[in-house]
This record gives sequence, structure tokens and C-alpha cells, in this order.
Amino acid sequence: MEPGPSGGSRPAEPGPCLHGPGGACQETSAYSLSPSGAGLGFGVAAVLPAGGCGERMGVPTPKQFCPILERPLISYTLQTLERVSWIKDIVVAVTRENMEAMDGIIQRYQHKRISLVESGVTRHRSIFNGLKALAVDGSKSKLSKPEVVIIHDAVRPFVEEDVLLKVVRAAKEHGAAGAIRPLVSTVISPSADGCLDHSLERARYKASEMPQAFLFDVIYEAYHQCSDYDLEFGTECLQLALKYCHTKAKLVEGSPDLWKVTYKRDLYAAESIIKERISQQICVVMDTKSDEEHVGRLQEMLKNELKHVNVTSRPLCHASRDLQQITLGQCYDFVCINVMNFDFQETRKLLCMLEESHLSILYPVVVVSVNFLDYNSVPFGEKMENLLQIREFAKEVKKRNILLYGLLIYYPQDELKLQESLRQGAAIIAALMKERNSGLVGQLLVA
Amino acid sequence: MEPGPSGGSRPAEPGPCLHGPGGACQETSAYSLSPSGAGLGFGVAAVLPAGGCGERMGVPTPKQFCPILERPLISYTLQTLERVSWIKDIVVAVTRENMEAMDGIIQRYQHKRISLVESGVTRHRSIFNGLKALAVDGSKSKLSKPEVVIIHDAVRPFVEEDVLLKVVRAAKEHGAAGAIRPLVSTVISPSADGCLDHSLERARYKASEMPQAFLFDVIYEAYHQCSDYDLEFGTECLQLALKYCHTKAKLVEGSPDLWKVTYKRDLYAAESIIKERISQQICVVMDTKSDEEHVGRLQEMLKNELKHVNVTSRPLCHASRDLQQITLGQCYDFVCINVMNFDFQETRKLLCMLEESHLSILYPVVVVSVNFLDYNSVPFGEKMENLLQIREFAKEVKKRNILLYGLLIYYPQDELKLQESLRQGAAIIAALMKERNSGLVGQLLVA
Repeated sequence: MEPGPSGGSRPAEPGPCLHGPGGACQETSAYSLSPSGAGLGFGVAAVLPAGGCGERMGVPTPKQFCPILERPLISYTLQTLERVSWIKDIVVAVTRENMEAMDGIIQRYQHKRISLVESGVTRHRSIFNGLKALAVDGSKSKLSKPEVVIIHDAVRPFVEEDVLLKVVRAAKEHGAAGAIRPLVSTVISPSADGCLDHSLERARYKASEMPQAFLFDVIYEAYHQCSDYDLEFGTECLQLALKYCHTKAKLVEGSPDLWKVTYKRDLYAAESIIKERISQQICVVMDTKSDEEHVGRLQEMLKNELKHVNVTSRPLCHASRDLQQITLGQCYDFVCINVMNFDFQETRKLLCMLEESHLSILYPVVVVSVNFLDYNSVPFGEKMENLLQIREFAKEVKKRNILLYGLLIYYPQDELKLQESLRQGAAIIAALMKERNSGLVGQLLVA
Repeated sequence: MEPGPSGGSRPAEPGPCLHGPGGACQETSAYSLSPSGAGLGFGVAAVLPAGGCGERMGVPTPKQFCPILERPLISYTLQTLERVSWIKDIVVAVTRENMEAMDGIIQRYQHKRISLVESGVTRHRSIFNGLKALAVDGSKSKLSKPEVVIIHDAVRPFVEEDVLLKVVRAAKEHGAAGAIRPLVSTVISPSADGCLDHSLERARYKASEMPQAFLFDVIYEAYHQCSDYDLEFGTECLQLALKYCHTKAKLVEGSPDLWKVTYKRDLYAAESIIKERISQQICVVMDTKSDEEHVGRLQEMLKNELKHVNVTSRPLCHASRDLQQITLGQCYDFVCINVMNFDFQETRKLLCMLEESHLSILYPVVVVSVNFLDYNSVPFGEKMENLLQIREFAKEVKKRNILLYGLLIYYPQDELKLQESLRQGAAIIAALMKERNSGLVGQLLVA
């Protein structure tokens, strides 16, 4: 089994852990059975049907290709799956028309271990095509037949490794397994005349979600056996395994994060969740020449302003060798402290490092370039020129998905005013990192 | 029947139409049977159970009280119901502990026609309490027994008047009616050992949503007849009407907007939807002295930047008498053009008008104060002072929920540069209106 993605020009890890704010990653890493990511002791692959047209979204783009922070939704789902080292192959079924676009997505976001197959006209047919690609075991195919296959949706980007592992283990034991969630609404059966026939007792039923997993032979056999009617109108893989292979699926309680992006509001929700998750860590970078007291106090204010956010700092001269560690630490937010001379030397250094790291391939990286000053003592003409300078930098790095903003923090002698100035500076930084608004890049804000 | 809310210090209409972007309002107004809002010819009231603790949200605040743009979710739902003129009374069931907070919400957001009752320990018991309050018909109660009662959730703020009317009319005819939606996930029945027993054919079932409506006598009788078990564990009012009054509810297809705010992600989605809806109209206000060519071109750029947004302009001298019209038109976004003298005279005038209009009681109002300038020709010291001035204004009006930002648009002779400058100005305005970020108020942005 091949190791996790590495090399190439993307950061060593395929991006941040999208698995719940905070500790979820650490928890689930206990499941990694070998440090080399050698897997579970049996082969696992995943099939993603992504041939849908997204009619419920009310937008012309199929929902799996709708952009979130300018990246298609499906790329987030692929990222989540590919960082699970024990999933060897990921087979994505897309329509012939979207094949090229999908290839472009794989290239652009440097996804690994992905194979594309053509989707069918229904979800079941698409999954079947994916399974067929995996069934061809031999020298001609780069794919190999897995013992267990995961079936997941392209539009459920927030699946946790923990849940994937649970369904895979349950499938290994029971032949089939699927994630379930409590019902949000009561389910009713209408009569032919559009009236209530009966309602189901909510507690006795569950919503069947994804991921599901199967012994490959079970689900492949079920698809071979099942009727055209099933392939056209069926919606439930677990039901096929039951009906055609007499395999009773084990049901695994999933987290709320498993939800399927279905409507436009779900795209809004997904964007907010992603923004929140990539704003969990701020790194304050400074030159050793910087006044450490200024920086320490700003950092305190940031911690006050952004509860639950991990704020660390490091000197710029070490940042280079530390940067890999920072990016491994999944930090997408930087505050760069400049010394008084206004040439943004420190910021330029940081921007160079960030560009080299390719950190911004997957997410927009925010850099707030901070100058402390008593603005009565500096001629304004000079500052205005600097302003223009930061706009030029910002325009340049925006092309590489880095959002640069300038911030002047007024630093008076008066302690109360200073306090207020730092507090406002922290509030502005928090606002910029929360929104990641590209319309405001290059602006010089004043606290 | 009393007319819609009026007078008081809130705008004549209880706020914007939250009924789908664009035309939905106009469409539904066709249903208003009389221009005075005299109603449907029979009495209608609504009951909102709001005693839940929101355990699924994963936050300590019950979800109906979670803030969206700093206003509790339930206030949005009340606003939506109270703007339907033919709903006479709205009875809200809240826990004893939340009674005072709820009273505060009603005062602060000036809700009308609301009565509070104490909730029960379950949803059914809360609804029953609401119905009991409406049943007491007589001189002692300010409520009167309606012919039809709507039951709705406090956490479904986006219900459309159209759907309310459909369920009410169907209830008048059939005795009971409820909104339904297609199932998003397949529903399955687990066996006792946590395995799949069987899955339901998705197309044959529906999700039962809210609103529902009943002939008052039918649902009141059903609640009187039903068992303690029903009151404790039941989830479906339509089922009670069927079981105890043999009334088969008519099912009415609802829109996706009916969804229930259940998880934290739903709050994110609701916030995005509300932000989007209150940014559908921009009013550009200017003094007659302003250079109309500047303004016209900026307006064009705004239209390009913000598709689907209605951008209108009017001279400030007429704004006063026009303002009621503007607020009736549900505009929460203003661009105020200042003349060259930098004293923000026009902006101050507009801010006064806005404060008088109480437009910002329900939503944060964005004002972008624009100065056009060739900044080589103006001394910077003066501008810096202006910057401080706008920060002070902003701090002041922020207390009244008005978000003020400054914008300098560089206006060079060079046509290409000018084009770029206007485009960037429009992009900044669009960004500010989209995000409504209070962390950036008082900033002077430069395009």
C-alpha cells in the first residue's frame, strides 16, 4: 500500500484537518495503526458518485462543483478522504461533460490517488461504474480490488476519519455498514389524494447517511444481481446488500457534520464552517528588532478577541525553518509586525516564505501587516506612499491566494488610549481573518 | 380584526420581506383580500412553541434565542408572522425562566400582537397551553378564539406568506393541513441489534414540516382527547387530528426555506440568508452639488459588481421626504456621496435621517460615506483629521446599529486609472455591504 501523499509542491500534509474544531485529529490519529500509514491490514478504496446535476440547489452549476472560497466543493471532500492514509484508491464517477473539469480540479489542487470513471444516469449506476473500475484487478489497471469499499458522497466534505474507520471496521465484520443520524422532521406517508395517510414514530426510524462501507464482493455481487428498477429508482446501497446478498448492514451513529450539501443554504453553512476552521490558529511573526512589549500585548488582545483561537508567535528569522512546522500545524492566518521604517521588509520576507510553501493552494491565507506608530511624529506623505506600496503587494500576492491587509496601530503614551488602540487593532485583525474578504485586500486600516 | 402594525417608532412596515429574493412579496400580495388587511373572512391566530432547550445545537443558549446579526432568531420568526396582516394573535409558549427575556425581545424589537404563555415540558404540552390561551373567549382575555389556528416553529424564520395562506385555506376546507418537503435522506428502520431491518422507499414518504393549520375546534378537541403518552412522546400534530378527530390533513408542498434551524450550521446558513436578503437594495444619496457624472459612473460599477441588486439614487435634499419610501422599500444599504470639503456634512445629514427613521431597529444599516478626490491636491494632515472624525461618528452611530465606513475614491484624469479606481470603489462597497462587519466601522478605505 502506498504511503500518504507527499512530495510535489503542495505542503506535506494535504491541508488542514477539517474534522471538527480542536482535538478531533489528535483523537483519530490513535486509530492509525502504523506510523507509515500502512493501513488497516486489508485494502480499502472509496467510490464517490459525483454525476448529479444538483437540481435542488437552484443554481446551474452541479452542487459538487459549486465554489466555496473559490474552490469546488468536491475538492474539499477529496482532500478529506485523501488525508486518510489507509484509503488506497479514490474512484470518482463524473459525467462525460465534466470529466475535463474534474481533471483540472485534480491538477490544480494536487489531489492524489484519484481515478475518474464515467458516471451513469442514476446514482446507483454511477456507483456500479466505480465498483467495476476497482474490480479489474491486474497489471493493466493501476487500481487493485480492495477488500472493503467505502461509498461516500461528493457533497459531504466534513466526514471524520473516525466515522470512516468505524464503518469500514463494521463492514469488515458484518459485510455492510452505514452511518445514520436521528430524523430532524417527522416522516409521513401521504395518501393518493395528497392527504395524510399515517405518520411514522420518529424515534423508531433513522436517516441513512454516508459514508457506507461494504465487503467489496458483497456490494459488487449485489449490483450484479439487482434489477433495472433498483438501478433506476433505488436510493439505498444498504438495501441492495440486504435484498441480494442477505447481508444485514451494521448501523453506525454519525456526527451532525455528515450532512449532505443539498440546498443553497448548505453552501452558505459549509463556507462558514470552513472559514471558522481555518481561523483556529494565528501565528504572529516579527523581526527580532520589534518591540517585544508591543507584540506581547497585541497577542494578549488577540486572545481576548478570538476565544478558542490558538495564537502563537515566532521571530521572523526562525520562521523560515519553522514554517514547515507552522503549515503542518495548519495555520492560515498570519500577523506580521514591521519595524518603524515602513518599507514592509518583514512582510515581504514572510510573503516570500508563504509563496514558497504553497500553503495557499487549498485555502486563502490571510496576512495582516502591522505597523505600530505615533502618527503625529511621521510625515503623512510618506505613509500615503507606503499605502500605495501595500496595495501593489496585495494585488500581486492575491493572484496566489494570499490576502494581504495593512494595519497601523496608533501607539500613544497614554495607557488608556494605548489599551483602546490595541483592542481595536485586535478587533480589526479578528474581523479580517473571520471574513477573508478579498474586496478589502491592500487596504491600510487604522486602529 | 385589527390592521397591521403601525405607528410607534418602528418603520411602518415591520421590516423587510424575508420571502425569497426578488418578487415573492409582490406575488403574495395578490392574496391580500382587502387593502386594509382586513383578513380572510375568518379569524386566524398562530401558536409558536418556543420552550425547547436546543440540545442539538451544541450551544448553551436555546436555539430560538441564538443571535443572528445580534438579534435573537425568534424575533425574525415573529417579524415574519406579524407582517401577515390576517394573523390576528400570535401566542408564544416559553419557559418560565425565559419569560422575562422574551418580554424584553418583544419590547426591544417592537413586536405586535404577541401574547406569552408558559410552555410545557414537551412540545405538545406547549402547543396545548397556547391553544388553551386562545380558547378563553371573553371580556377577560385580550385574545379571541380563532376559527383557524396556525402552529409554527420559533426556529423557522423564513416561512412565506404564500405557504401560510395555503395551509390556512386547506385547514379551513379539510380541518387540518401541513407543509411537507421531499426527504433529503433515505429513511431506514433499525433492528434491535443496531442493524438495518428495512429501508423505506424514499419517493413514497415525505418530511412533515411547519407551518401546520387546523380548525381550532378540531385540534383543541384532539389535544383534549389525546393520551399522556401522546403528549409526552408524540411529535406530530397532524397525527393527533387524525387519530382523535378522524381529520385527514391536507398536505401542502412547501419551499426549501421552511427548514428548521437545528444545528449550528443552520445558524450560519440563516445569517448568510438574512445578510443576502437585506443587501438586495442600495440607495446612493448625494447632495445636489455633487458631480453627477462621478456618481452615475460609480452607480454603474456597483450594478456590475452586485448583480441582482437594485441600485437607486436620489438627491439628499429630497431624501428626507423620500426616506419613508426608501425604508418601505426595505433598503438597508446607503452610499452617501460627500462634496469636496471633507466635513461629511451630507453623511451627517443622512445619519440623522436614518436615526429618526428607526430603520436600524431590526437590521444593521450600512452607510458608506464616499469622497471623490485627487489626493495629490489635498494636504494629508487634513485628511487624517477627517479620518478621526469619521471614526468618532462611526462609534456614535454604531450604538444605534448603523455601520458607518469611509471611502476615498481617487479620481485621476487618466480614463483607465479612473475606471480602475471606480471599479475598486464599487468592490469595496460591495464587500462592506455583504459582510456587515462591525469590526471595521469607522475605517477610511481607499480605492
